Amino acid sequence: MSVALVGAGPGDPGLITVRGLELLRACDAVVHDRLVAPELVEEAPEGALRIARDGLSQEEINELLIALAEDGLEVVRLKGGDPYVFGRGGEEAIALAEAGIDFEVVPGVSALAAVPAAAGIPLTHRGVASQVRLLSGRLAAGDPDWESVRPDGATLVLFMALDELDRICGELLVRGFAPTTPAAVVSRGTLADQEVVVAELSVLSEAAAHLRSPALAIVGDVVAVRERILARPLVGVTAR
Amino acid sequence: MSVALVGAGPGDPGLITVRGLELLRACDAVVHDRLVAPELVEEAPEGALRIARDGLSQEEINELLIALAEDGLEVVRLKGGDPYVFGRGGEEAIALAEAGIDFEVVPGVSALAAVPAAAGIPLTHRGVASQVRLLSGRLAAGDPDWESVRPDGATLVLFMALDELDRICGELLVRGFAPTTPAAVVSRGTLADQEVVVAELSVLSEAAAHLRSPALAIVGDVVAVRERILARPLVGVTAR
Repeated sequence: MSVALVGAGPGDPGLITVRGLELLRACDAVVHDRLVAPELVEEAPEGALRIARDGLSQEEINELLIALAEDGLEVVRLKGGDPYVFGRGGEEAIALAEAGIDFEVVPGVSALAAVPAAAGIPLTHRGVASQVRLLSGRLAAGDPDWESVRPDGATLVLFMALDELDRICGELLVRGFAPTTPAAVVSRGTLADQEVVVAELSVLSEAAAHLRSPALAIVGDVVAVRERILARPLVGVTAR
Repeated sequence: MSVALVGAGPGDPGLITVRGLELLRACDAVVHDRLVAPELVEEAPEGALRIARDGLSQEEINELLIALAEDGLEVVRLKGGDPYVFGRGGEEAIALAEAGIDFEVVPGVSALAAVPAAAGIPLTHRGVASQVRLLSGRLAAGDPDWESVRPDGATLVLFMALDELDRICGELLVRGFAPTTPAAVVSRGTLADQEVVVAELSVLSEAAAHLRSPALAIVGDVVAVRERILARPLVGVTAR
């Protein structure tokens, strides 16, 4: 009986880790996020329990993981992206630790860099940006701490940014970000139906209004590096 | 002829992506960073060229990748962590685009979250930290922009922090970080000989003096979450 908190990666099923896939293929039960690729859920053995976490609260997920493990099952908790970057994996880890359940954390490729990469945008680039700030557009505990965000040259990466994009851009403009700051929204990054919108910050929300979740926003001069990287038609992950 | 910029992950060879390993097993040549696991370099086919990038400048690496691809080879550029997070992958991508070489970027698990995870530290945690700031202790272009760093509740993650740790901690204290701020240095994260030092910011540098590179430093209240996660002996990636 044990639980593995496994990061499934940003969307493309090929971006799960070798270790994560190995555990998935050997598990008795998989509890998966809605956004995890169906191809990955299919990788669990034929007789394995497959439970979508939709509609369960974090508290209920914690209880479910403990119950399955105490029932003697090898459990994989398959989470989008990385368990410990806006993934609430820490809460699951603490619950398991307190219940005396053995567990392991298998990091995943976070949307953080993979989704910008799939749109041709590096997070850091020599002479352009050497710092990155991550925040979430939607937090369990309410609003991000906007007070601490200011235009300081760091690339800004916003998770789950779509629903609140208009308000987020407003907050950034109020805090001194130039209306012309290069910005992008990547919808369904690394998937076949990925869409990218590039626009100046002041019109980003309008330009991205038609996009679908999940989406990640990138604000900063690295967005302009994209034009140089996309000078050549690309193949694979960055092709879309 | 094409080049794949592949993230090898943070150290543990099991943390490469399925897609990255697939490309590696089919390549004609691999150009790899020194810190990439030898087990991964071994995954290239028996007859493949294996070139360590040690001693080559970034400019020379760019030229090498172009030359190998123009020679008709399928090339994997195997980079530690993720190509686009302090990985200078953007520079390689631009060089390839300008030379008219097809390429693809395969994101990797960045040390960013994987190394703290391997030490039991989540980067974000409900009620503790909802923002993350990444910077590098050592930049190609010189010093990080310390002016923009201040104690604002974001978890601070410092790449390649070991050589300059004393000066880095000094900069943070000068900028208003409390001497008692929880902090950690993780040496050789995710590898079998991983070592973790946890200390208050004011004494971190002294406490970590014996550690070996590569190392990543984490500064912020999430470091204290570690005690709750480590309440139970762990297995796998987080065991060390």
